[in-house]
Amino acid sequence: MRISPEIDALITRLARLPGLGPRSARRAALALLQAPETRLQPLMGAMQQAAQTIQTCPECGNLDSCSPCSLCADPQRDGSVICVVESVGDLWALERAGMHRGRYQVLGGVLSALSGCGPEDLNLEGLMKHVEQGAVKEVILALGATVEGATTAHWLQEKLAPYPVIVSRLGHGVPMGGALDVLDEGTLAAAMSSRKAL
Amino acid sequence: MRISPEIDALITRLARLPGLGPRSARRAALALLQAPETRLQPLMGAMQQAAQTIQTCPECGNLDSCSPCSLCADPQRDGSVICVVESVGDLWALERAGMHRGRYQVLGGVLSALSGCGPEDLNLEGLMKHVEQGAVKEVILALGATVEGATTAHWLQEKLAPYPVIVSRLGHGVPMGGALDVLDEGTLAAAMSSRKAL
Ligand SMILES: [Zn+2]
Ligand SMILES: [Zn+2]
Repeated sequence: MRISPEIDALITRLARLPGLGPRSARRAALALLQAPETRLQPLMGAMQQAAQTIQTCPECGNLDSCSPCSLCADPQRDGSVICVVESVGDLWALERAGMHRGRYQVLGGVLSALSGCGPEDLNLEGLMKHVEQGAVKEVILALGATVEGATTAHWLQEKLAPYPVIVSRLGHGVPMGGALDVLDEGTLAAAMSSRKAL
Repeated sequence: MRISPEIDALITRLARLPGLGPRSARRAALALLQAPETRLQPLMGAMQQAAQTIQTCPECGNLDSCSPCSLCADPQRDGSVICVVESVGDLWALERAGMHRGRYQVLGGVLSALSGCGPEDLNLEGLMKHVEQGAVKEVILALGATVEGATTAHWLQEKLAPYPVIVSRLGHGVPMGGALDVLDEGTLAAAMSSRKAL
């Protein structure tokens, strides 16, 4: 049997989403097609709505329906502390943690020779503008603990060196709820040296 | 931070798809929003196209852009052998196996007191019509090896008893590539008694 090209196209498009393989894309396509009123149409509506309203914040690179985004527009947020993240997903994760009351800069990538991402591909305009205006006291580099993340952090540190700003990075250590025996030596060494008296 | 309601609605809708939890729905939503031209619009287009063209086959319950479906319309398919499946997903799986050259009947469910699915909820019209016309030689019950699947198979067997049709079921045994020590006793017993000389 040749599957109908319309179903095939839907499965192919769904399979390109992160986290969905061919198998789960087939299941998702079936679920959509078997419930046009309760699944397919509402999801299409939500996508349409998002496509029409969501834009990239020209200040920080966040995604929001207002521009500048609700974080940049919030007068309660401390504009002198800017947290640099790779992606909007990382920004969301940090917001869920609820510890950062400043603003963000979403780079949209990290330096990587492999994926061809160079300094000119990083979204840094907003950050550098605020730094040059002298409005920034601290830049927190919240980049992943990968080679690319470390390279990007190092490069940013050098780029910010001429300015009177504190550059910090997230602490390394044992993840909450994490078992010790699955952690690498680097993490455990960092956890040892950042130990706290009880 | 309150995430924008449009993004929130998109995540919620995506999270209702089988195989996507809240975490992967967030990743999928981000992937869509960060690539409106290459991901969001094409997926919306594919959904729109599918919504406009795909319908349930009035004969067998398959999903296709033509009606009756391409399987029911195919003169090469043996209409005297009908394979009964629970869902279109099961039909696709059997078609990938490529062993069945007859037609199908998609029940759209299995008998289950828990989910409130009774005999009147099963899509049996096409099958019974062909059986009553004397056009069917064999009915293959390709239902899951669950309590509900077995109950449904038993009920169908009784329903077909008055007619001169062979009723068969899929063979049980060790799945290809499967390890023995994860299989239950019932499967292993079935595999032993269906063993073949080499
Ligand atoms: Zn912003
Ligand atoms: Zn059909």
